[in-house]
Amino acid sequence: MNADKQENRAGGTLYGLGIGPGDPELITLKALKIIQSVAVVAYPAPENGDSLARSIAAAHFPGGQREICIRTPMTPENFPANDVYDRYAGEIGDHLKAGRDVAVLCEGDPFLYGSFMYIFERLSRDHPVRVVPGVSSLGACAAAAGRPLVSRNQSLSILPAPLAEVELERRLKGADAAAIMKVGRHMAKVKRVLERLGLDKGACYVERASMGDEKICALEDVETDAAPYFSMVLVRRSEEGSR
Amino acid sequence: MNADKQENRAGGTLYGLGIGPGDPELITLKALKIIQSVAVVAYPAPENGDSLARSIAAAHFPGGQREICIRTPMTPENFPANDVYDRYAGEIGDHLKAGRDVAVLCEGDPFLYGSFMYIFERLSRDHPVRVVPGVSSLGACAAAAGRPLVSRNQSLSILPAPLAEVELERRLKGADAAAIMKVGRHMAKVKRVLERLGLDKGACYVERASMGDEKICALEDVETDAAPYFSMVLVRRSEEGSR
Repeated sequence: MNADKQENRAGGTLYGLGIGPGDPELITLKALKIIQSVAVVAYPAPENGDSLARSIAAAHFPGGQREICIRTPMTPENFPANDVYDRYAGEIGDHLKAGRDVAVLCEGDPFLYGSFMYIFERLSRDHPVRVVPGVSSLGACAAAAGRPLVSRNQSLSILPAPLAEVELERRLKGADAAAIMKVGRHMAKVKRVLERLGLDKGACYVERASMGDEKICALEDVETDAAPYFSMVLVRRSEEGSR
Repeated sequence: MNADKQENRAGGTLYGLGIGPGDPELITLKALKIIQSVAVVAYPAPENGDSLARSIAAAHFPGGQREICIRTPMTPENFPANDVYDRYAGEIGDHLKAGRDVAVLCEGDPFLYGSFMYIFERLSRDHPVRVVPGVSSLGACAAAAGRPLVSRNQSLSILPAPLAEVELERRLKGADAAAIMKVGRHMAKVKRVLERLGLDKGACYVERASMGDEKICALEDVETDAAPYFSMVLVRRSEEGSR
């Protein structure tokens, strides 16, 4: 794909831009430069309400760009909303065909659970694409919590909290360390599984890492069963894991 | 730890700075600002030869800073070199006590297999520490290869290639997707295990992602058994994983 970098096609380039976990200062120099150079900026948003991705990057918009707000339903039964992505990919594709570069802003890293992949899979065959990696919430949560994720020959399991309980338990059982992402309304299940495996003590909860309202505490001190989508539980098999 | 941010101690602050996977433009605005503000910059290096971390960030050094080159033996039998880290932590600690801020540059992300944790564990009890997450090689390899790591409810296993063969096989067996890191001289073993599990087709090899000399190819096209340390094999259980 990188071969496309130097190609001189008539069409525009699609950029998948990782813009980091929330703190606008965790944007890379590369993403910043691209944001300031493209004709069109697109970003995901819920059906109603503001786009987090836009709020992270907006201070860097040079002004005068076209904006595409990719509004998609976030309810599990409608996800991914293929008809909606078809429509937005069509709109973005039209800009690319007209020779305009389009940057799709992605919270965290575009290829780690990013919704950019739904645009990518629809357009990467016909258009040059460049993906710019970003700081993921994984590193941001570990930094906020002040605890290493893994060292030396430890392995790390990245697990989405919406997994079925039995599946989550099976995958946690053999893990040296784990990051359970997208906790949201799955908190009670996550706690149950960790308790059964004896991994609840020492587990750490991080909400909205690197954002102004970030929250960090021991998992056992979390009282709610409804965490936000942008929350994570960090688990380590034993405390010696940090050394 | 973040509570330390605003504290007005007499001593300096220790920064663990993620500076990304290799491309100097993948440094964050936050890391850049800190590099340009601290009195002392430290970075890891092999016993002989240049520091990759320094080469990533050097263009941003404002000049006039003290530099500490943390030279450590990289051979497995000597790792981690506790006496060496004791010595460097002592030197860094002296600067902190004297009120000077020290930034330790970390390739990728400080808390994902970063050697920063050996300094962190020696100094975090007595000094304010701030860790700044960075773009990890994980996202950089996926971006270079043009393939998503995981989407929706898939889980991702991050596995160090030096793991024992039986252990690597056990962990890969249940994985939806995996990133096998630090391939180095373990290439033959990694290939054997993936072949046994039928995961070799479609696996992708990425070397020195985002650096000038990055290399990307299908795993089956890799002819050498000696990859560099900064190399990764990306594995997915099935092609439908991308959709």
